[in-house]
Amino acid sequence: MDDQCYDLCTKLVSQSYIQQGKQAKLVHQKKIKHLLQHRKLPEDGWTDQTIELLLQELSVMDSNNFPDNCGVGEREARIFSSLVATRHYRFGHGIGRSGEITAIQPKAAGSSVMMKLTNSLMLDVIKISGIQSAASCFIVPMATGMSLSLCMLTFKQSRPNAKYVIWPRIDQKSCIKSMITSGFEPVVIENCIEGDELRTNLTAVIEKIEELDPDNILCVMTTTSCFAPRVPDRLEEISEICKKFDVPHLINNAYGLQCTKCTHLIQQASRKGRVDAFVQSTDKNFMVPVGGSIIAGFDAKLIESISKAYPGRASATPTMDLFITLLSMGSQKYKELLKERKENYQYLASKLSEVASKHGERLLKTHHNAISMGMSLSSIIVKEDKDVTEIGSMLFTRFVSGTRVISNSSTDSTINGLKITNFGAHCDKYNCPYLTAAASIGMTRNDVDTFVTRLDKVLKKYKSSVGSNCDVQSEEEKTTNNIPQGNT
Amino acid sequence: MDDQCYDLCTKLVSQSYIQQGKQAKLVHQKKIKHLLQHRKLPEDGWTDQTIELLLQELSVMDSNNFPDNCGVGEREARIFSSLVATRHYRFGHGIGRSGEITAIQPKAAGSSVMMKLTNSLMLDVIKISGIQSAASCFIVPMATGMSLSLCMLTFKQSRPNAKYVIWPRIDQKSCIKSMITSGFEPVVIENCIEGDELRTNLTAVIEKIEELDPDNILCVMTTTSCFAPRVPDRLEEISEICKKFDVPHLINNAYGLQCTKCTHLIQQASRKGRVDAFVQSTDKNFMVPVGGSIIAGFDAKLIESISKAYPGRASATPTMDLFITLLSMGSQKYKELLKERKENYQYLASKLSEVASKHGERLLKTHHNAISMGMSLSSIIVKEDKDVTEIGSMLFTRFVSGTRVISNSSTDSTINGLKITNFGAHCDKYNCPYLTAAASIGMTRNDVDTFVTRLDKVLKKYKSSVGSNCDVQSEEEKTTNNIPQGNT
Amino acid sequence: MDDQCYDLCTKLVSQSYIQQGKQAKLVHQKKIKHLLQHRKLPEDGWTDQTIELLLQELSVMDSNNFPDNCGVGEREARIFSSLVATRHYRFGHGIGRSGEITAIQPKAAGSSVMMKLTNSLMLDVIKISGIQSAASCFIVPMATGMSLSLCMLTFKQSRPNAKYVIWPRIDQKSCIKSMITSGFEPVVIENCIEGDELRTNLTAVIEKIEELDPDNILCVMTTTSCFAPRVPDRLEEISEICKKFDVPHLINNAYGLQCTKCTHLIQQASRKGRVDAFVQSTDKNFMVPVGGSIIAGFDAKLIESISKAYPGRASATPTMDLFITLLSMGSQKYKELLKERKENYQYLASKLSEVASKHGERLLKTHHNAISMGMSLSSIIVKEDKDVTEIGSMLFTRFVSGTRVISNSSTDSTINGLKITNFGAHCDKYNCPYLTAAASIGMTRNDVDTFVTRLDKVLKKYKSSVGSNCDVQSEEEKTTNNIPQGNT
Amino acid sequence: MDDQCYDLCTKLVSQSYIQQGKQAKLVHQKKIKHLLQHRKLPEDGWTDQTIELLLQELSVMDSNNFPDNCGVGEREARIFSSLVATRHYRFGHGIGRSGEITAIQPKAAGSSVMMKLTNSLMLDVIKISGIQSAASCFIVPMATGMSLSLCMLTFKQSRPNAKYVIWPRIDQKSCIKSMITSGFEPVVIENCIEGDELRTNLTAVIEKIEELDPDNILCVMTTTSCFAPRVPDRLEEISEICKKFDVPHLINNAYGLQCTKCTHLIQQASRKGRVDAFVQSTDKNFMVPVGGSIIAGFDAKLIESISKAYPGRASATPTMDLFITLLSMGSQKYKELLKERKENYQYLASKLSEVASKHGERLLKTHHNAISMGMSLSSIIVKEDKDVTEIGSMLFTRFVSGTRVISNSSTDSTINGLKITNFGAHCDKYNCPYLTAAASIGMTRNDVDTFVTRLDKVLKKYKSSVGSNCDVQSEEEKTTNNIPQGNT
Repeated sequence: MDDQCYDLCTKLVSQSYIQQGKQAKLVHQKKIKHLLQHRKLPEDGWTDQTIELLLQELSVMDSNNFPDNCGVGEREARIFSSLVATRHYRFGHGIGRSGEITAIQPKAAGSSVMMKLTNSLMLDVIKISGIQSAASCFIVPMATGMSLSLCMLTFKQSRPNAKYVIWPRIDQKSCIKSMITSGFEPVVIENCIEGDELRTNLTAVIEKIEELDPDNILCVMTTTSCFAPRVPDRLEEISEICKKFDVPHLINNAYGLQCTKCTHLIQQASRKGRVDAFVQSTDKNFMVPVGGSIIAGFDAKLIESISKAYPGRASATPTMDLFITLLSMGSQKYKELLKERKENYQYLASKLSEVASKHGERLLKTHHNAISMGMSLSSIIVKEDKDVTEIGSMLFTRFVSGTRVISNSSTDSTINGLKITNFGAHCDKYNCPYLTAAASIGMTRNDVDTFVTRLDKVLKKYKSSVGSNCDVQSEEEKTTNNIPQGNT
Repeated sequence: MDDQCYDLCTKLVSQSYIQQGKQAKLVHQKKIKHLLQHRKLPEDGWTDQTIELLLQELSVMDSNNFPDNCGVGEREARIFSSLVATRHYRFGHGIGRSGEITAIQPKAAGSSVMMKLTNSLMLDVIKISGIQSAASCFIVPMATGMSLSLCMLTFKQSRPNAKYVIWPRIDQKSCIKSMITSGFEPVVIENCIEGDELRTNLTAVIEKIEELDPDNILCVMTTTSCFAPRVPDRLEEISEICKKFDVPHLINNAYGLQCTKCTHLIQQASRKGRVDAFVQSTDKNFMVPVGGSIIAGFDAKLIESISKAYPGRASATPTMDLFITLLSMGSQKYKELLKERKENYQYLASKLSEVASKHGERLLKTHHNAISMGMSLSSIIVKEDKDVTEIGSMLFTRFVSGTRVISNSSTDSTINGLKITNFGAHCDKYNCPYLTAAASIGMTRNDVDTFVTRLDKVLKKYKSSVGSNCDVQSEEEKTTNNIPQGNT
Repeated sequence: MDDQCYDLCTKLVSQSYIQQGKQAKLVHQKKIKHLLQHRKLPEDGWTDQTIELLLQELSVMDSNNFPDNCGVGEREARIFSSLVATRHYRFGHGIGRSGEITAIQPKAAGSSVMMKLTNSLMLDVIKISGIQSAASCFIVPMATGMSLSLCMLTFKQSRPNAKYVIWPRIDQKSCIKSMITSGFEPVVIENCIEGDELRTNLTAVIEKIEELDPDNILCVMTTTSCFAPRVPDRLEEISEICKKFDVPHLINNAYGLQCTKCTHLIQQASRKGRVDAFVQSTDKNFMVPVGGSIIAGFDAKLIESISKAYPGRASATPTMDLFITLLSMGSQKYKELLKERKENYQYLASKLSEVASKHGERLLKTHHNAISMGMSLSSIIVKEDKDVTEIGSMLFTRFVSGTRVISNSSTDSTINGLKITNFGAHCDKYNCPYLTAAASIGMTRNDVDTFVTRLDKVLKKYKSSVGSNCDVQSEEEKTTNNIPQGNT
Repeated sequence: MDDQCYDLCTKLVSQSYIQQGKQAKLVHQKKIKHLLQHRKLPEDGWTDQTIELLLQELSVMDSNNFPDNCGVGEREARIFSSLVATRHYRFGHGIGRSGEITAIQPKAAGSSVMMKLTNSLMLDVIKISGIQSAASCFIVPMATGMSLSLCMLTFKQSRPNAKYVIWPRIDQKSCIKSMITSGFEPVVIENCIEGDELRTNLTAVIEKIEELDPDNILCVMTTTSCFAPRVPDRLEEISEICKKFDVPHLINNAYGLQCTKCTHLIQQASRKGRVDAFVQSTDKNFMVPVGGSIIAGFDAKLIESISKAYPGRASATPTMDLFITLLSMGSQKYKELLKERKENYQYLASKLSEVASKHGERLLKTHHNAISMGMSLSSIIVKEDKDVTEIGSMLFTRFVSGTRVISNSSTDSTINGLKITNFGAHCDKYNCPYLTAAASIGMTRNDVDTFVTRLDKVLKKYKSSVGSNCDVQSEEEKTTNNIPQGNT
């Protein structure tokens, strides 16, 4: 309503009350204005009302919502179902254009504003998270793996002969697939075992680069966030190597934005050496539904060229989910969540340690990994022929999700044509079997308490049944039950 | 509620009424059962209530909604904002796994059921639309262009040396980008002008294949749906050529599913020769928000291998939008919509013809294109130096979206490194300038009436102002205003 | 967003597109302005988007939504559940104040504007419906019966000695209860049987008034909409009688607003004689959930005094439901619905007539009743001892709701202390047993077709089973099953 | 989904995951079963998902949602607008029947179950709140005042000659109106000033009863929750008097359910003497939107007779709002809220005391009132001719709602024909002017802090401007601005 509308209201309701109502409206408007002006995360989260006000204002600006619009194109963002229209706040045009995923759409000014704002907010969040020098980022409605592919395909355009990706081993299928699908050949760098930790073998990286010739190398792909006992790669040193050999450096930071250890590594790497792009998941870092990732970097031009490589427009959903979530969160709550996560990590470590020692096991010492941790299962899993992942299944049927159990049996797997020994363990043979658990954003102390209680019970039951099949489960289940285990 | 619940209800409300209520519930349940059993589009669309009942039942099955679940993984589908949770019906896990986008997720049985069902419904729809032999399909939350890339990258795995894509020219940026981003080299086959139509030059296709050697050719990429005066490619002949030379055949069927001319062509091509995959947009064919496409084909194995190439899980939004929309539509309404579209095409042709002759112009004769049509602007656009696209802008500011104006000036453009003469016209030089309009699904007769009325006015105004700048528009606008024109 | 916001948007998205979006916003705003200015039903219904825009603008004006409001009163409209907040568009203050239900609330300017607007819209609707002279009305969140009570209690204030209500018999419990609860004594005027119709006995009305002395009479309460074979009361004559004897005249127009026969009667009555107030249900006339009624009249002062009699504030829900519904409908659609209802009445009559003659029965001739109609069951119901209402139950279990079956057995009932012979039949003894059906707003031709088909089957089954219990039903059901029959 | 549906799902997704999803569903179902069985407030609040599951199950049972239902009655609960349908979860039939507001509806089994359950839950809540002996209650979609009227009109039926209501003065308009609208004559019992408190004059009550003859007295209406310095009536003594004289006792417990002092009084009164019914608001005690009240008592028969006096069916909205809210809250959270309120009362008292002494004022000693408190304004308001309520207005425009300022000037008001001296002060002349504030359910410590800060500023500004008009406000505003002050 504009001033005239408010004036008309005073014919129905006395002026002083209308005046007060208008004042209240101005407060919302002021927040919106501030957002449009500064494009930064508001300090205090917005109420749902303010968020919906803005979404509606923007939605109204898209051509499919124009009153009396007549569409004679092949793509008019008509929406058949009102359930669908409602759940998208009547946005229909998606984001981007065939030219570029961050391009503005003439038919969708509102969607375009939302997209631009969300990318700006996200850059602010990345800086708040610890990567202060980040220069540009954009949200893309694809999983981390596909986004890594997009980055590599873009690198390829300026490195037409390159075909190898130097890749310190991380046992995630999507990671391997991102290289193979985009047509590159992963060059596996096995990790070193240092104490309990699995760490980057820098010498091997250098040797491989030299062996294959830097010109033939598309990039080095490193990983921050990962399951213990693997720890984040030695980013600083690798970035220096990349700089020295003039090889692109791509970082898989899937759920690392929530963890200052990871972000600090990226920030430092960018200062000391070369980092071309780092990619993270939206759902894992910001508690939105699966569907998007954020491609970010220190060179706005390069990031733009990646955004231009995406052919066609795309779903606005991950962008909208983040838009709503970030505005609702505000920087204060975001920082709180990061702090809580850190505390929960400590709490999880201490509680898991207790359970471990109760069962004659111990927490693995992997202090470089500040998200995931492992607990040994040395004495519990005595027979290699028993399906150790059964512990994971037992936990899952007791409504514990997210643990992984890794045996130290050594078998070969072939992932998309790539032969990997002991897949899942990040190395050919680890010291002992173990179970992992992670403290991720949004976890509560109550989650930890429930977990350790249930774990304790499961371990007791498992031990008492060794040699037999502890849970009543069919054969078919056993073969499939090892699935709910992490980032597969 | 189960039988016990209903029994308990009879202590509050008399049995006969509870009985009646239970009967009503069974009707919904019966529909759900029928769907799960047959996995085909219901004949009559479902009410929103039945749809929401099913969505809720499925949502409850996902781990993030398990009461008392405790999540200690790195990805637990927590949702921060209740606005976001609501708009996703509390689904959070997306679809697919790192292994495959059509894989089931242990943590998300409900999402997995929805995904499987939607893919099945979609296959049924494809058959209803006229491609009866289609064997498999899946929905992917990426635009058509990115999906074409995914197909080509998958082809590449079994054709490691292939680098060329034989490509009968279609002036869409995302199409070109899909080849270049995935690292291939488009080999442009210029169209022939036959009467008013632009058609595939079959001879040139054969010559190029022979010249480059079939082994070096990744695939031939053809197009069905396109702007007049270009018409769908000669699919049958091309599929025979592909079969003969053993070269994959990929069809860009972006908005062709709604048009029996296009689907018939694909069906025939698959019978007579080789079609590896055909890709279509979800939004353009099914009136859902932008964001997904459907990759389909006649060999379930091949389609599966494409689905396995997608690295990582993905947004469930395009799937959910289709799930809701298809159930809400039912086959009866879908067929009606297809029929109406056809009628509107005829109606648009006759009305546009009237306006054309009123202004001394004519409708281009492009009867092979059953979606888009062109009207000549030979006499209206007299000066080449005048920005003809201004007519498009004038229409857009009068709330007509989707028209395109193409001059016959001949200038060179470079799209992602590919030099193309007179980009937008699908050929180096066409007979006359023209304006296009399309009859797409969901259009109404009212849209047509409004369009021709506004077009008539705009043409009058434009003609009266030739030599001057007819609308009061800034220079900046002129350079950008030619944008809301079609599938760019 | 204000102009400054739009300007800021142009830094993100080019000016011409923002301009177009702003234009679209202005269209919504213009509609809102027009509404605030004229407070009449818009001709064309609004889209849900425009409606929600306005609701949000108004909601923002209420104190419970003021950002940073601090409430230290005993009533601050805090809302605990977000589900509840959402379903009320975050309105919490209800309508009215202790002073008056149409009073504005200082803490709730938005709710107050909505309430005032809805009352204005409703007055417009009443006029459109045929009561052009109506001077004032307000929506009250109480059923018709309670609203009739409120009117009578208000009349009482200026007629302290009056205790009788002259009441041409209409067999609706809530009607009787409205008099008795408010402490008055109904004086039943039995209807005359004229042909098939049950009509007002005017002589008896006059006699009773004279007998009891007009000063002791609170009012005459007449009824328009009713079940056939009763027809609307002779309003014109009664209003003249009321004028002559200076006795208030209250009209129960429960679902009569949808029917020009009823509204015409009220309009004429107000011209020729005395009508103090007429009351109608919101749900029955406007397809909103049950919960409100509209008190209207020809003297704004009197209507205001009724509104002032309501002690305390009240639920805004019936008002909001009407606000949304009326804006969504627009006058054009409303008129269409009225027209369709009329046509369906004719259609129902012809189809019911067919079924009747098929079974040796006939349609009762009650042409003064333009909503409800009756079909004789003379030959079908042969034994008085059989529970005739079983036909109603059989229909209900076959998903036909709203029919009533009336036997012509004569038994006495006592409703709230009032002894009434043959309750349900509107007279002590009618010519024959019968079944009623009605054509009300929102009914479709399909409803009619389904109804007559199912009725035909039920009658066949009933006749074939006379003497036995035709449906398998428990005794308990039989005693309760006669319930789903009309306005009980 | 039933077992068959789940079995069918296993053809799409492996059995173990479906099994897990089914388990999760059973948890929801178990909660629903427990609720239906025990009809008590769950200890832990339900998630929105479980609540919506149940609402949907119930909604499906109403005839307007029956698939293929055909309605030929005059009231079929059709809903025109999908916005309206959605906000009512597709319930349309309201609650109750013409017979009784707590009657079940044949056409609306689901609504009826919801209504019965909510009334049961509410009875449980009343007991939890401290009135353990309460025997019955029902929710009625009317404000407290109208509900008090309904009680009195019901009393009237068994006391046909009674016309007086003995009423210890409480200055609330709706309270007075409840008596006058229902046709009774309030007999005002002036309060005694005891210290700072205004308390019931028991002697005067007895004298009046004797003077007027108990048979002529409809009831004594007492009040618990009220603005300081008035305190709750001496319920125990009054109930003994009512018992002795055989006069009904009606308690206005508007927002007293949240306060153990009030509920304890009612419980004790019912033990020692006579309490017929006590009435409370839904919004003030349970943080739902305005619109309903709860009529409760210790004799189920009497409460039933009140419920039967309501003529016609009614809005289900207040019932549904409570249903959702109570399930969402659970008893644990409810108790927490009550505890927090008590603490906030203490906190408010201490902070307000600080501000008071800073300005040379003091907190009034009214320890019998555990919700509202007063702060003297003796020195601040020096001139009687100045509009003291300006302080209230100044606070309101600074987004503080709910305070009231009472001068000690003595003027006569006439409320609905009843002359009352110094209306608003609960007595003809109080010791000093004062300002009230209340600690009600849902208030936060932050509210208190903000309030005292703003109050301090306002008092400073007011004092500095005495003699002049402190805020820039128009005359019109001054006359209306004293409105946002409490329970008017």
